[in-house]
Amino acid sequence: MKAVQLTAFGTEHLVISDIPMPSLKANEVLVNIKAVSLNYLDWIVLNGTFNKKLVFPYIPASDGAGVVAAVGADVTRWKPGDRVVMQYVQNWTKGKVDPDSNAVRVGWQTPGVLSEYTAVPEHGLVKVPVNLSFEEAATLPIAAVTAWHGLIEQAGLRPGQTVLTQGTGGVSLFALQIAKAAGAKVIATTSSEEKAVRLKALGADAVVNYRLHREWHEQVRALNGGEGVDITMDVAGAATIGQSLLSVKENGFVGTAGFIAGPELLLDIHQHRINLNFIRIQGLAVGSAESFAALNRAIEVNDIHPVIDSVFAMEQAREAYLRLESGQHTGKIVITLP
Amino acid sequence: MKAVQLTAFGTEHLVISDIPMPSLKANEVLVNIKAVSLNYLDWIVLNGTFNKKLVFPYIPASDGAGVVAAVGADVTRWKPGDRVVMQYVQNWTKGKVDPDSNAVRVGWQTPGVLSEYTAVPEHGLVKVPVNLSFEEAATLPIAAVTAWHGLIEQAGLRPGQTVLTQGTGGVSLFALQIAKAAGAKVIATTSSEEKAVRLKALGADAVVNYRLHREWHEQVRALNGGEGVDITMDVAGAATIGQSLLSVKENGFVGTAGFIAGPELLLDIHQHRINLNFIRIQGLAVGSAESFAALNRAIEVNDIHPVIDSVFAMEQAREAYLRLESGQHTGKIVITLP
Amino acid sequence: MKAVQLTAFGTEHLVISDIPMPSLKANEVLVNIKAVSLNYLDWIVLNGTFNKKLVFPYIPASDGAGVVAAVGADVTRWKPGDRVVMQYVQNWTKGKVDPDSNAVRVGWQTPGVLSEYTAVPEHGLVKVPVNLSFEEAATLPIAAVTAWHGLIEQAGLRPGQTVLTQGTGGVSLFALQIAKAAGAKVIATTSSEEKAVRLKALGADAVVNYRLHREWHEQVRALNGGEGVDITMDVAGAATIGQSLLSVKENGFVGTAGFIAGPELLLDIHQHRINLNFIRIQGLAVGSAESFAALNRAIEVNDIHPVIDSVFAMEQAREAYLRLESGQHTGKIVITLP
Amino acid sequence: MKAVQLTAFGTEHLVISDIPMPSLKANEVLVNIKAVSLNYLDWIVLNGTFNKKLVFPYIPASDGAGVVAAVGADVTRWKPGDRVVMQYVQNWTKGKVDPDSNAVRVGWQTPGVLSEYTAVPEHGLVKVPVNLSFEEAATLPIAAVTAWHGLIEQAGLRPGQTVLTQGTGGVSLFALQIAKAAGAKVIATTSSEEKAVRLKALGADAVVNYRLHREWHEQVRALNGGEGVDITMDVAGAATIGQSLLSVKENGFVGTAGFIAGPELLLDIHQHRINLNFIRIQGLAVGSAESFAALNRAIEVNDIHPVIDSVFAMEQAREAYLRLESGQHTGKIVITLP
Repeated sequence: MKAVQLTAFGTEHLVISDIPMPSLKANEVLVNIKAVSLNYLDWIVLNGTFNKKLVFPYIPASDGAGVVAAVGADVTRWKPGDRVVMQYVQNWTKGKVDPDSNAVRVGWQTPGVLSEYTAVPEHGLVKVPVNLSFEEAATLPIAAVTAWHGLIEQAGLRPGQTVLTQGTGGVSLFALQIAKAAGAKVIATTSSEEKAVRLKALGADAVVNYRLHREWHEQVRALNGGEGVDITMDVAGAATIGQSLLSVKENGFVGTAGFIAGPELLLDIHQHRINLNFIRIQGLAVGSAESFAALNRAIEVNDIHPVIDSVFAMEQAREAYLRLESGQHTGKIVITLP
Repeated sequence: MKAVQLTAFGTEHLVISDIPMPSLKANEVLVNIKAVSLNYLDWIVLNGTFNKKLVFPYIPASDGAGVVAAVGADVTRWKPGDRVVMQYVQNWTKGKVDPDSNAVRVGWQTPGVLSEYTAVPEHGLVKVPVNLSFEEAATLPIAAVTAWHGLIEQAGLRPGQTVLTQGTGGVSLFALQIAKAAGAKVIATTSSEEKAVRLKALGADAVVNYRLHREWHEQVRALNGGEGVDITMDVAGAATIGQSLLSVKENGFVGTAGFIAGPELLLDIHQHRINLNFIRIQGLAVGSAESFAALNRAIEVNDIHPVIDSVFAMEQAREAYLRLESGQHTGKIVITLP
Repeated sequence: MKAVQLTAFGTEHLVISDIPMPSLKANEVLVNIKAVSLNYLDWIVLNGTFNKKLVFPYIPASDGAGVVAAVGADVTRWKPGDRVVMQYVQNWTKGKVDPDSNAVRVGWQTPGVLSEYTAVPEHGLVKVPVNLSFEEAATLPIAAVTAWHGLIEQAGLRPGQTVLTQGTGGVSLFALQIAKAAGAKVIATTSSEEKAVRLKALGADAVVNYRLHREWHEQVRALNGGEGVDITMDVAGAATIGQSLLSVKENGFVGTAGFIAGPELLLDIHQHRINLNFIRIQGLAVGSAESFAALNRAIEVNDIHPVIDSVFAMEQAREAYLRLESGQHTGKIVITLP
Repeated sequence: MKAVQLTAFGTEHLVISDIPMPSLKANEVLVNIKAVSLNYLDWIVLNGTFNKKLVFPYIPASDGAGVVAAVGADVTRWKPGDRVVMQYVQNWTKGKVDPDSNAVRVGWQTPGVLSEYTAVPEHGLVKVPVNLSFEEAATLPIAAVTAWHGLIEQAGLRPGQTVLTQGTGGVSLFALQIAKAAGAKVIATTSSEEKAVRLKALGADAVVNYRLHREWHEQVRALNGGEGVDITMDVAGAATIGQSLLSVKENGFVGTAGFIAGPELLLDIHQHRINLNFIRIQGLAVGSAESFAALNRAIEVNDIHPVIDSVFAMEQAREAYLRLESGQHTGKIVITLP
């Protein structure tokens, strides 16, 4: 079968190889991958800044969707032909994460999904929503599940509350779409008028251009009737956390779901009114297969379609990564497999 | 000022009287009532089956909206001209109810609202949503707050879950509208094809005619992919509770928000799988002023408009009550004041 | 190996048989059972009133503890010599129950534990608390987990709240012990002064003799400063549910954890103030392996020791069942194996 | 009446003055203060580092308990002779805080309590637990309510969980006592063997000397079976937050309840595993009157007695402050009034 492999750090070392089909254990499912999506994480893995100890050749990517090609002898949940999507944290089936269930991530402790076939334990898959294509479904495992788990399961978002999202990356756009489906008001930040138009088309009630408003939290409050928002989904980390905190009201929830501008978060109890206003800062990173399935029901009931920035063929994998590096994308970058 | 008064049990004893304006305490607000809505409760009060000890003459009705006409010396939250709607359980400002906050209900321990003016403590009012008329706002205090508090605050409704509503009364239609705004799937029961069409127009994903399907819980499950719903809002009590229980899945929530077919609920631990499926039966009856305000934000963000069955002038109060008795209404019956 | 088997309904058909050792699958653990405890359920199974379709010969009992004798090839969590106790709902590892995880119960869809050896999937076992003997640990799987899951995870018991327990059966005594460990006040009902003394020795703050006080809910309120309790653990069903409801305050929690006086629960919305007081009636039936492990940590930290009524040898299994039938027991009845 | 007043920043400007009795509004209660306790906040107010704009002469201190001396005409909850303790955030009666309820703190927007009499709105008081003296009750409003609200209401502490407390200040010792009453395991940090002995006498299951173990989070984990604790109550802020984060397990809760070593909190998403382990950092600062009343029930049921470091007479107010400054205290410093 064909697979994209990384033979050393850097996009120039992404090659297409012919490798043996994976063997199938009794409790495993063989998935014919049809589409893969990239995350910010994939970029910092590729360029070697996230994990220096990567073993080459390495099949990259964690988000994938496809069709069940075969099932092991003990598999009961799936049959050939089923449309499935990968559960990123493979053994986290339900409830809260614990050390055991937190241990295995697709593309880390297992091979990545940028290959024609991959073998997965039967509990490590979720059904593709009936209203989504493989390209769309491939965008869900990390970004959409993180947004869902953060907004709905951790923050307990209610209709009529206000959510602040940041930019046009995957988590942020899913947060926008999920929040709107949940009946919330959404204020989004962005860097350009062009993207602002796009965000409004996706349902944002208001957009703040953080280039024009350096103290953008003031603008956020002004757009929310003078009070803070209920929930901020912070994705830039070091660069945004302070204003993310200043943007929320009493009992506000600041989910940290990314660190594209650095992982250091400098908080000030007084300046950010953390204690007096009972602010909650909540670390976020995907969710369980049960959360994923719940998200998928919401996607079906509300006919949510992920925002796809661009689709590349397997042979264009490098171009896909370069698009990711550019930061010019709005929504998810997808690679299709034959 | 003019007020509708009940001088004895029965619609024939509803009269319009000229009575003195209420006096105003330092912490009170004088409200010029513009619209009133009726609830099932108003009917059983009027006909004497709910509370035999009513003191006549009695100004009926609990749901009202209007304009602030004057404020007492200590009032800080309101000023003349503000559009306000009554908080039914007057002293329940926030949090969970306790004996103190549960003690005073509009139209019970205080005069009803079917009069040109009424005096209310400043904490006993909520702002009218900006997108609603007085007629619409008057429908909210009991039915909409009960649906909101039950679905959102007690049941913790999430997008993609399924809610079962029953019929076309006030609580049920608000439950339908709120659940749809929250991104849920809604299955509604009804007694006629005509009402089924109306329910679908309001957003119901599926409708079950309980006249055609006596074991309607089976139909509900069939319409939900073969599994039970997450939440049932039961409004008929004795007649529906058994099938309401059989309609929910594991960890299901059955809110009891009414008793139009009797207050006796016969549950069977085995037959209804109450223990094995961890079913929750939750008593429901309105909510706090804080809940009401949260509902109003959801009404504004999602531009929800209450379903009004019919509007009567003050002089037609008897006709309004007879419409209520008929059971033919879909949505709320409103009485306007001059 | 030796096993107790039921060859037809009735204690007289309990026999000790010599049967083959169970075979061991790759993911299974062979447990040498050291102690078994009986539940009310075991009695109604034995006498044929619960499940007429039992297949004979049947190895009864669900609660057991013992030592790992051998492990299958794929087992990673256990090794020979580990002290283990059975997880009753075998596949309910964590989170909330769903149809899949709710399907397999020890002694129902699998053989019972009243035998020298039994084979269990590795996820169907929990560690014995370090401070407990096998006899003590064998009492936990149904009664203690039900009390824990109900009080702590469903009702969210907090220190200083008041819990009402009923009688001296397994769930009730565990509820008493857990509630006291959690810093709550406990009021217990009982039928005799002798048992009242025992309940107080176990930590009950007050005891009500329901034979002397037929309207015992009034006594409960009197003993709680005139107000209702926060949580009632109802175990008798038909006979107690009404007064259980009348015993709780606003937002009260009534867990139904048993049905020894019948499974029919007659509730009255008005009389029991279900809606006006926002009462929650919650079906209860054991919990997940994760709940069981959490309970065990509480048992260790607080050095809780289960109340054992009596211990019988395997050969005295009939006597153990007759003791159960008598209703004279206080705490759990245990059968030890060689 | 006599009152302690601050006439300029610094202990040397604490004087005893004779000032007029406060006048009493219709909804107010006149309290004859019997005891006052000091908090870290009182020190930084006194020395001018917290609030430069203080208006002199200023009556300091927020924590006080005493006897109702008289009640205004509209007061219904209290009568002369009632034993009462101050609710610090005066208008936060119940539920979650909002801007209105968060606005008025005793000793900030109202006079402090270090005077013979003070006038308080009737909702700004709570009953003294029956098992406590005035000296003991005076220690509760800030430190005990913060510990209670953080551990029980925000973190949802359950029996068997492990709580990490830091040092021997007010919040930390109350956290220790409350956690033990709730059936938790407690690990405490301290700077001396002498204090370690004291902490163990108060119920700590284990103590870590952070002077001997600079990487004390490793010691904490070692004492918790190799895994992180469930809840850390951080009180030193800048100096401790990093190790507080490293001390918790998956889904861990780090409450920030103080800032004695500075208000800047430097978090690192990777190093502290904030996202991967779903860590929650929660700002904490006292609670509502309803929380305070719930705490008081727990204090009564579990007969908890606050740890009092030392008691000073009104005339020794300066010595009390100097004791506070010394940092040598274990538990609360109390000043009694005549």
